[in-house]
Parts: sequence; structure tokens; C-alpha cells
Amino acid sequence: MTLKEFLIERQRQVDAALDRLTPPEIEHPATIHRAMRHSLFAGGKRIRPILCMSAATAVTGVQEDSDAVIHAACSLEMIHTYSLIHDDLPALDNDDFRRGKPTCHKVYGEAMAILAGDALFTLAIQTLTTIQFAEPGRVVSLIRELSFASGTVDGMIGGQVTDIEGERQHPTAELLDSIHRAKTGALLRASVRMGGIAAGGDAQQIEALSNYGEHVGLAFQIVDDILDVEESSEALGKTAGKDAAQGKITFPAVYGLERSREMASEQCRLAHESLSSFGEGAQRLHEIADLIVQRKS
Amino acid sequence: MTLKEFLIERQRQVDAALDRLTPPEIEHPATIHRAMRHSLFAGGKRIRPILCMSAATAVTGVQEDSDAVIHAACSLEMIHTYSLIHDDLPALDNDDFRRGKPTCHKVYGEAMAILAGDALFTLAIQTLTTIQFAEPGRVVSLIRELSFASGTVDGMIGGQVTDIEGERQHPTAELLDSIHRAKTGALLRASVRMGGIAAGGDAQQIEALSNYGEHVGLAFQIVDDILDVEESSEALGKTAGKDAAQGKITFPAVYGLERSREMASEQCRLAHESLSSFGEGAQRLHEIADLIVQRKS
Repeated sequence: MTLKEFLIERQRQVDAALDRLTPPEIEHPATIHRAMRHSLFAGGKRIRPILCMSAATAVTGVQEDSDAVIHAACSLEMIHTYSLIHDDLPALDNDDFRRGKPTCHKVYGEAMAILAGDALFTLAIQTLTTIQFAEPGRVVSLIRELSFASGTVDGMIGGQVTDIEGERQHPTAELLDSIHRAKTGALLRASVRMGGIAAGGDAQQIEALSNYGEHVGLAFQIVDDILDVEESSEALGKTAGKDAAQGKITFPAVYGLERSREMASEQCRLAHESLSSFGEGAQRLHEIADLIVQRKS
Repeated sequence: MTLKEFLIERQRQVDAALDRLTPPEIEHPATIHRAMRHSLFAGGKRIRPILCMSAATAVTGVQEDSDAVIHAACSLEMIHTYSLIHDDLPALDNDDFRRGKPTCHKVYGEAMAILAGDALFTLAIQTLTTIQFAEPGRVVSLIRELSFASGTVDGMIGGQVTDIEGERQHPTAELLDSIHRAKTGALLRASVRMGGIAAGGDAQQIEALSNYGEHVGLAFQIVDDILDVEESSEALGKTAGKDAAQGKITFPAVYGLERSREMASEQCRLAHESLSSFGEGAQRLHEIADLIVQRKS
């Protein structure tokens, strides 16, 4: 199976599971479920769930699509989507479009978008609590990973706050690093760690996956910043060049485009290196690292 | 110890634990921690934590302030505070004051208030994952209770949505019931259930506490609606009479004041009845039921 075929198959699997795990549109109160589904099924590439499933496969050597792994994978996409809905709100980034579609608050209004974000967060936790492991301690580990990666201290919310407060500040390498490690890095790192935990990986394997996640996460963010500068609004499906217009701190702003590209490649190399103790089961993680650096959108 | 002394002692205990469990104001990024603490320490009566701790005591017969029970109690207050911060936002209830103090978004701005709500939710889950039980399955049960009570289906968010959509609709008894069972009822019910679970209660005890929680929750909401009509803005610490101005569906609007008062007393009686299988350990739960109906603010 080519990587492209693999990704499409995994996306379908994740989409089907998300559909199963999210209350249907007709469930009372219907508006909130429509708003949640609007953003959850707005064409996301499911990078975090696929990283989670691929990390599980790296640990066991066989394709991992047990309920436990799928639930962990879906919880990550729910958290990611909740963060996008809140980030897009007028009080935050004020984005009207995301992945080429109108954002949640443009369609359902601000009140419903705030609650839809809250609800997807809640659903992510609910989803993890319904996993049936022989050892319930593993469920607690998964919830611990997800909640700390989403939090204020070195987590997603903390990164978002630092990002907001960093606007119009002098862009330094330290500030940039601290924002991205938290804002996008923590959840990408949690994605592979959670896959490893759900598949029963040992401490050494989880540590190796952590390192992979950190490098891939940093590469991902560097490429995201480069694309924001390079791509036209149409191709990216969101308002491009917006980072610069908002005075956001980005890798190209601190290091320039050329050096940023070199840094992305270096992080990719380190990601590959982190996987050295895994066998063939890690093939997809290797391929995904390359894809993240080479992507055009 | 009188009930008043008991409540003050419990409040102090909860406040101290919340302070310990919440990142300090100086922790980076400081703004979000200040915003979280602004609302967390704005003079709340800690009803949910005290219900949780008292339910634990009903189960074991001794005063319960183990780490497990305290963490469960604090997670409830964090969720409650997150819901208040988001409810008060301009896009939702647009309240400038809460408990006589300026609301989170008035002090820290809308962006930070949205994120502070998100962060308190995250912290509630983190807090539960750090409980050390001999059986980790009990932690999973606590997180399941809290997350389902906060969700869209018969939970807090669902009730909030139905409430928003119910504005300007014809106030029927069915609509009123469905809003309050979800909006405030689910979390109050979860408060006593989680206390029971944290203290190792059996299925029958948890069921009895559930019934108590439902009746007390309904009584609480009826009295809240009555107070909104009766009290002046000053005494209540929030803009009174606002329910009516916003066209919210309330018990006095559907049943009238007199019948609402009778209903609150009836729910109180049923709450007492639910506790019949417990011994003296349930004394405080009995007293709290009475207090909820008799309170003046």
C-alpha cells in the first residue's frame, strides 16, 4: 500500500469512528451537535489521529486499529478541533474561513461556537473514559497525557496565550520556541505518546516516540509558517500572510525563509533518528515525517 | 460543630486545595493563571465541593478529607467556574458582574476569558488524573461522571444550549424541566455521586446519592429562579430580574411564585427521603438540603 493509499484509508477509518462517537445531528439539543459536526467534518487531514495509530503500529509491529487506539486517535482530533473553533473566534484570531469553509461562529454564531468548542473537549474526555482496557490505569495515563498537553503549563492553551501576548513583541528565537513547543508541539507529541500507551508500549518506546513527536511537531510548525508566507489564500484555504499582518512571531520572521527550510529538514532528520530502535512497524512514521516537511498545504 | 462552622471550615479547606492545585500567578504564562484565579477565588460558596465531601462522609460515616475526595471536590468547582466564565461572555449572557465582582472578560478581555474557561476545564481533568487510588478504575469512574455531567446529552452544555434556544419560546413545564435537569442538575448530581465513588461507596449508595442530588439540584434551581425575581441587584451580587428581561424560562414564570415555593419544599422533602438508608454520616447532607431551600442569596 502506498503512503497515499494508507493515509486515505486511515482518514476514512477516523472519519467513520468520529461519526460513531459524536452524537447525531438529530440528538437533542440538535444545534450544538450540528455545530460540532460542522467543524469536526470540515475536511481535516486527521494528522494527529494518524500519528497516534501509526505510533501504536510502531510499538506492536502490526496494523493497530483496536477500539482503544481508535478512541485515543479520535480524542486527539476532537481536542484539535475544539482549539481551532475557539482560536477562530472574533475575540481571538477572528478567522472567517478554515480549510476553505466558513468557520463555526460564522455559521452558528459566537455563543454556539464557544459551546461547540467546549462540547468537543468534553466529548474527547468522554471518549477516553469509555475505552475498555484490562488495566484501567492505562485509560488514566491516556487522559493524563491529553489533559496536560492541552493545558496552560507547556501545553496548548499556554502556547496560545504566549502567542497572543507575543504579537507586536520583538520576535526572538526563545519566544518562538516556547510558543510552538506548547501551542502545536505538545498535542503532536501527545499524539504519538498516546498511540504508544494505547498499544501497551514500554517506557523506552514511549520516550522514543516522544522524541519523534517533538521533532515532527517542530518541523510541522516551521513548514506551516513557511507556507503562510509562500502560499496564496486560495491554495491554503485560509487567509494567508495573516501571521505577518497580525505581527505573529514566525520562523521565517526570526530566521528567514532559507534558514527555516534548513531547520525543517534538520528536525525531520532527527525525527527519523528517534525511531532507530523500532523495526519495520515504524515505516509509516518515517514516511509521515518526510511528508510533513514536503507538504505544499 | 454548627452547620455554619462546618461550611466555613469546608470552604477554607476547598479554597486551600484549589490554591494548591492551580498554577500560581507567577507561573508562565502569567495572564491566564491570573484570569483563572480571578474567577476561581471570586467568593464562590463551594456548594458542589461541599456536597461532594459530605456525600463521601455519608458513605463512610467519618469526616472525609482524603486527597481523593478533595481532588474530586475541587474538580467540580473548576468545572463550575469554567461554565460561569463562558456563560458570562458577551456572546452568551453578557454579564458584567458575578458575585458582586467584575466578570473575567471585563477584567482580562474576551480572548483571555474564553481561554481561562478552557483552562479551568483542563485543570479539572488534570486534577482527577493525579488521584492515587489502589484501583485506577475509580479514577476513570470519576472522570466519566464529570465529563458526562458536563456534556451535551443531558449535561451542562446541553442545558445551556436548550436555555439559549428556549429564550422567547413559550415557557412550558417540559422545557423548564429539561433545561434544569441538564444545566445545573447534572453537575449537582455528579457532585454527590463523585463523593460517593471517591469514598468507595457501593452501587446502592451511589444510587441513593443520585436521587438526593437530583432533588437537591431541582430545589436549588427553583430557589435560584425565585431569588432572581425577589432580590435586589445589590443583595444577589448579580443583575437581578435579568432572567425575566432576557425572556428566560423560569419556575416562577411557569408555575407562579407560590407554587414554586411549594415545589422547592417538596423537592427538599424527597431529598431527605433519599438519604433514609444512610446513618448519622448523612447529617450534613440533610442540613444542606434545608439550607438550599431556606437561603436568601
